[in-house]
Amino acid sequence: MSEGDGAAGDGVGTVYLVGSGPGDPDLLTVRAAKLIELADVVLHDKLPGPEILGRIPEAKREDVGKRAGGEWTPQEYTNRRLVELAREGKSVVRLKGGDPFVFGRGGEEAEHLAEAGIPFEIVPGVTSAIAGPAVAGIPVTHRDHASSVSFVTGHEDPTKEESAVDWDALAATGGTIVVLMGVGKLPAYTAELRDAGLDGDTPVALIERATWPDMRVATGTLDTIVEVRDEAGIEPPAITVIGDVAATRERVVEFLENDDTQGDDE
Amino acid sequence: MSEGDGAAGDGVGTVYLVGSGPGDPDLLTVRAAKLIELADVVLHDKLPGPEILGRIPEAKREDVGKRAGGEWTPQEYTNRRLVELAREGKSVVRLKGGDPFVFGRGGEEAEHLAEAGIPFEIVPGVTSAIAGPAVAGIPVTHRDHASSVSFVTGHEDPTKEESAVDWDALAATGGTIVVLMGVGKLPAYTAELRDAGLDGDTPVALIERATWPDMRVATGTLDTIVEVRDEAGIEPPAITVIGDVAATRERVVEFLENDDTQGDDE
Repeated sequence: MSEGDGAAGDGVGTVYLVGSGPGDPDLLTVRAAKLIELADVVLHDKLPGPEILGRIPEAKREDVGKRAGGEWTPQEYTNRRLVELAREGKSVVRLKGGDPFVFGRGGEEAEHLAEAGIPFEIVPGVTSAIAGPAVAGIPVTHRDHASSVSFVTGHEDPTKEESAVDWDALAATGGTIVVLMGVGKLPAYTAELRDAGLDGDTPVALIERATWPDMRVATGTLDTIVEVRDEAGIEPPAITVIGDVAATRERVVEFLENDDTQGDDE
Repeated sequence: MSEGDGAAGDGVGTVYLVGSGPGDPDLLTVRAAKLIELADVVLHDKLPGPEILGRIPEAKREDVGKRAGGEWTPQEYTNRRLVELAREGKSVVRLKGGDPFVFGRGGEEAEHLAEAGIPFEIVPGVTSAIAGPAVAGIPVTHRDHASSVSFVTGHEDPTKEESAVDWDALAATGGTIVVLMGVGKLPAYTAELRDAGLDGDTPVALIERATWPDMRVATGTLDTIVEVRDEAGIEPPAITVIGDVAATRERVVEFLENDDTQGDDE
């Protein structure tokens, strides 16, 4: 691994595609924490969360997630900006919530950098898809309950005409299903999963702002979770966990020290 | 979060179920690194890898993965030992490779601790299932290639009579499939996936000892990967990635600074 010293011999900087983890600064990796400190510029959106972003000096932060004229910064702008900064010899951290390669467009950024001849490093992070359920006492796999786990996003590319996610096939795996960014479309995919044959009593948990100071958890079943969401007022960002493992929470939460939210369950 | 100060008011210690990440000490989380340092005892197996284990003083290490009389330490022993140490007032780290809740039996340990009334904390880690492919230049999801990713284990509970993994359903998802501990059974599940209709030309990558100093990568297709494995002599621990995303590696590896292995591809 290179040492994050900012520039290769030819004056071109390195880009670090870095996962921030779910939001608790203690869940940054040692390498991520070091790179954020050493970087000349940190390009980020909102998902790393207030605690991590709050530790980065304003002067070296660039928000590429903010709306401009009602729209999100296009991916093309971010790609271009990464190349531009590296060509100025800057050491650039592209900081993404969770892991950069799980629904984070990190793959597209890596390909763009390689096409432009910019050296880059991937710094994996703790994904919210696993850590969100975990800190709520829910293991995404379990020898007795789930031989597989699948991650999908509820917030698909709006340019796609129809959902590319095959909910029938996911239901047929018999494993845990974790939906990232799936608060808004919860009614649609819970209905699809029931139509695909999943039992209405299948346990479901929603973890809102996992590991953030104001994290909340709400639990129900495939039949009840939409009502639970509405009553609790669960909002993005949140993780949805569907499967028998979601019931583990109630068996362990009394002794789980991560979690200050146990009184808040619906 | 509690501060890892070792004992609750009643003299019972806390158990920390900690993910080590894939093996590079820089991919430990800040919290994992701190807890390993503060713990009275660290219970571990081999998966955290030589670099991380090498930093823990011998005096506080207990290997619960080693063979005794030709067999692995039973899970029951580990469960019992965690409770015993906590009742002695010890601060106990149970260190697991990757993330504790991804095929790591962390869920079973959490349930056992809760039944015994022992306070515990989950410290999620960077899972090798995502980080292994990532450091080889492979994003497990990609807007153009994979709307979902499924994780399974190739090394199932030997007490189970037949595979609980539904390879037909996994193939039908159309997403990326990542197999942990899947070197030995590679011939069986690649055949099952072809029978399920996956194209023999589907890209496949094997990442051996991801992020360890002697990491290796070998790539092929569903049709060729068994031969590739045999020629390269790929051995456990390794991650198998199946899907179009596996071809990303060849497009980016020239500029990927994580990876000293690019000359070794088969």
